[in-house]
Amino acid sequence: MTVEAAARTWSHRHLLDVEGLGRDELERILDLAVEMREARRVRAHRSLLEAETVALAFYEASTRTRVSFELAASALGATVVDLAIAGSSVGKGESLVDTLRTLERTGATTLVLRHASAGAPHLAARTTGMRIVNAGDGTHAHPTQALLDALTLRESIGPLDGRRVTIVGDVLHSRVARSNIHALQALGARVRVAGPPAWVVGFEDWPGVEVATTLEAALTGADAVMTLRVQLERGAGGVAEYRQRWRLDDERMALALPGAPILHPGPTNEGVELTAGLANGPRSLIGRQVENGVPVRMAVLALLSGAA
Amino acid sequence: MTVEAAARTWSHRHLLDVEGLGRDELERILDLAVEMREARRVRAHRSLLEAETVALAFYEASTRTRVSFELAASALGATVVDLAIAGSSVGKGESLVDTLRTLERTGATTLVLRHASAGAPHLAARTTGMRIVNAGDGTHAHPTQALLDALTLRESIGPLDGRRVTIVGDVLHSRVARSNIHALQALGARVRVAGPPAWVVGFEDWPGVEVATTLEAALTGADAVMTLRVQLERGAGGVAEYRQRWRLDDERMALALPGAPILHPGPTNEGVELTAGLANGPRSLIGRQVENGVPVRMAVLALLSGAA
Amino acid sequence: MTVEAAARTWSHRHLLDVEGLGRDELERILDLAVEMREARRVRAHRSLLEAETVALAFYEASTRTRVSFELAASALGATVVDLAIAGSSVGKGESLVDTLRTLERTGATTLVLRHASAGAPHLAARTTGMRIVNAGDGTHAHPTQALLDALTLRESIGPLDGRRVTIVGDVLHSRVARSNIHALQALGARVRVAGPPAWVVGFEDWPGVEVATTLEAALTGADAVMTLRVQLERGAGGVAEYRQRWRLDDERMALALPGAPILHPGPTNEGVELTAGLANGPRSLIGRQVENGVPVRMAVLALLSGAA
Repeated sequence: MTVEAAARTWSHRHLLDVEGLGRDELERILDLAVEMREARRVRAHRSLLEAETVALAFYEASTRTRVSFELAASALGATVVDLAIAGSSVGKGESLVDTLRTLERTGATTLVLRHASAGAPHLAARTTGMRIVNAGDGTHAHPTQALLDALTLRESIGPLDGRRVTIVGDVLHSRVARSNIHALQALGARVRVAGPPAWVVGFEDWPGVEVATTLEAALTGADAVMTLRVQLERGAGGVAEYRQRWRLDDERMALALPGAPILHPGPTNEGVELTAGLANGPRSLIGRQVENGVPVRMAVLALLSGAA
Repeated sequence: MTVEAAARTWSHRHLLDVEGLGRDELERILDLAVEMREARRVRAHRSLLEAETVALAFYEASTRTRVSFELAASALGATVVDLAIAGSSVGKGESLVDTLRTLERTGATTLVLRHASAGAPHLAARTTGMRIVNAGDGTHAHPTQALLDALTLRESIGPLDGRRVTIVGDVLHSRVARSNIHALQALGARVRVAGPPAWVVGFEDWPGVEVATTLEAALTGADAVMTLRVQLERGAGGVAEYRQRWRLDDERMALALPGAPILHPGPTNEGVELTAGLANGPRSLIGRQVENGVPVRMAVLALLSGAA
Repeated sequence: MTVEAAARTWSHRHLLDVEGLGRDELERILDLAVEMREARRVRAHRSLLEAETVALAFYEASTRTRVSFELAASALGATVVDLAIAGSSVGKGESLVDTLRTLERTGATTLVLRHASAGAPHLAARTTGMRIVNAGDGTHAHPTQALLDALTLRESIGPLDGRRVTIVGDVLHSRVARSNIHALQALGARVRVAGPPAWVVGFEDWPGVEVATTLEAALTGADAVMTLRVQLERGAGGVAEYRQRWRLDDERMALALPGAPILHPGPTNEGVELTAGLANGPRSLIGRQVENGVPVRMAVLALLSGAA
């Protein structure tokens, strides 16, 4: 299927979260991302989005996600405008909705929005006519991260059907974890979560999710392990205790299936979530995750635009 | 007249304020803006300014005006460079003139300047060889705002000749008001201003401007009403009193001509300058004002460049 | 030699400092910069770097250098992405190496790095696969500044072989001075440094460098004079004493060769390093230095890329 055909038959106007996507749709995005990676390499599709104006509104600072979206939009020929909000005084005294409506009136056709409030992208979708891509909203969702994680996993261990994926850390407060659980389950994987009790509370009620009470139980038999960034300022027993009980190291990883890969959304806290050896070793997919960010976002922007 | 011919015969090198423009010139900009809106839609003129480098120097933070200029310059193929001054430490310890001369030496051909000091763009025009577009200087002038307001008004109520336009609010400190008075009068309109006494002081000496002492008197018979942003930190009796005496609402707007439209340069303070119902209702031109920002600025950049 | 041929035979992957460059190489960059200046004027080579993504990472604020690199990369058709680090919270809590590795994974091929730590660009070169251009690292080096200074000097006084160039000011803490000494000596010039004793300490051990103990001795017979920016917060006797003993003025410049030009890397402190009359007079090359910044950086980016 050509990019144009894929985009024409895409039925979603926004990418707000992963829940709305079926397995076929997820796989279509991943397949298109693979095509986009090659397209970028040979500089194809450089006019695909030339009619689009992609606005970046990052109300929370970010390097990797913002740069990744900017390069994705540029690679497809869109006009890109960055509101440069985080750290500036811009937007103070004006409601989010007013700012976004204004942006739409200037001609922005797609909005990439990161915001500390869960649901901000949904609000944007309800109150403006722009296509909205959620680049992370509070603790709710980070769909493009889940998509690039899924692509990275699939390219490492093959189809995810029936595979056991373990997510370790502050699952409760992680938009990355939440979107990954949705995406992994939709792709047929079996998800386990693990971490200090206060960080996995309530997940026993998530259909199909298994909550492990020790890291050892969580890792045993895992096909892949994803560890989340620890917010060092958050308590839950302190970093020292976290490190002692929940840090991935060689010994613990021996409980997982041989060669089971490790993912981390980055940036890592050196030696906290996993040892430096693992982070930089052959099992680590951390670099590949970042690499897949641009093509996944190219695919998302192309599909949403209906580019043809 | 083609864009190229219009630009070749344009006699102004800078857009510092509205005073320097005659009625024919103002109408030429507005006509060209209408053309530019269509050109943008069909992606014409995308190489018109390819020889130009447009530098954005916003010493005061701004979302809508900066984005609007950036998109206008990009739509015509200019190289755009943003000094990213507001909120950063850039420019500290270097005089404005030195910064701008340096910018010119790097190859910037046009400077879009916003600055807290009235007259900064004039200083730039005297001390550099760049074409200068004033994007707001202190309380002095905001010519592109006045142009987009004039276009919006003209498209709403037709030719402005003999029409009564009422400006309400802190007229004294408003660069928007000042530039609008010039533009509206040049286009043949009759201007009334109104607001708390301290905010309209001295305007009785402006030839042709009528100062109304009550909102009711100001609105009676008005063809259109422009209300200004209230700086909430400014006193003059407090927001509560302002709201009580000067806020536009349905009852008061009934004094104006039937269907008289309402303008506001944005962002509005919800419920202060006008009711939410009016701001979002059919009389409101607020969205159209923003929409007209990009084509008006395309027209200005094209004319100043002498693009051919 | 065509740009393409020059780039193909260029043997350096990075521009970390001037020390690594021989005289022929320096002159090749300067010659190419002259070509690039003309190329920019006629908008040639606008696709030369279309396969490149140039990332700007300025950990210290800068207007002129950042804008200059951005325009240089844009003029050659590269995709440019600015990390917008200085003044923001970006990068906090992530090591430099992690940030740069992430950047590389997103597809950046060349990194322009300014950092307060001497050696940061070398670290980047060792730990990533990107081509690195040092845009100033601590007090260590600022190679593109030395290159543009050399070009400016050569265009003013001809070949530098055997010419006496005097550098005045806080030589010890100046990356500009250090890179200039290397470049000037490599191009055959004889370098003298002068300034308050604490600011030239140790330079008597630099082979070929003469340390003058008075400004008068330093200027006598000089073919050209470069004065450095004084950090006003730095002590060494205070600004008043600096001005009295080390400021360039007409009388003192009379000791130099007739018409000997004056350089300053900018921004100047009005009346501190040199009189306003000299800064704006016919001997001043300050404006030409800035003008040469873009073509020199075009030449560097083109050579490093191996563009063909």
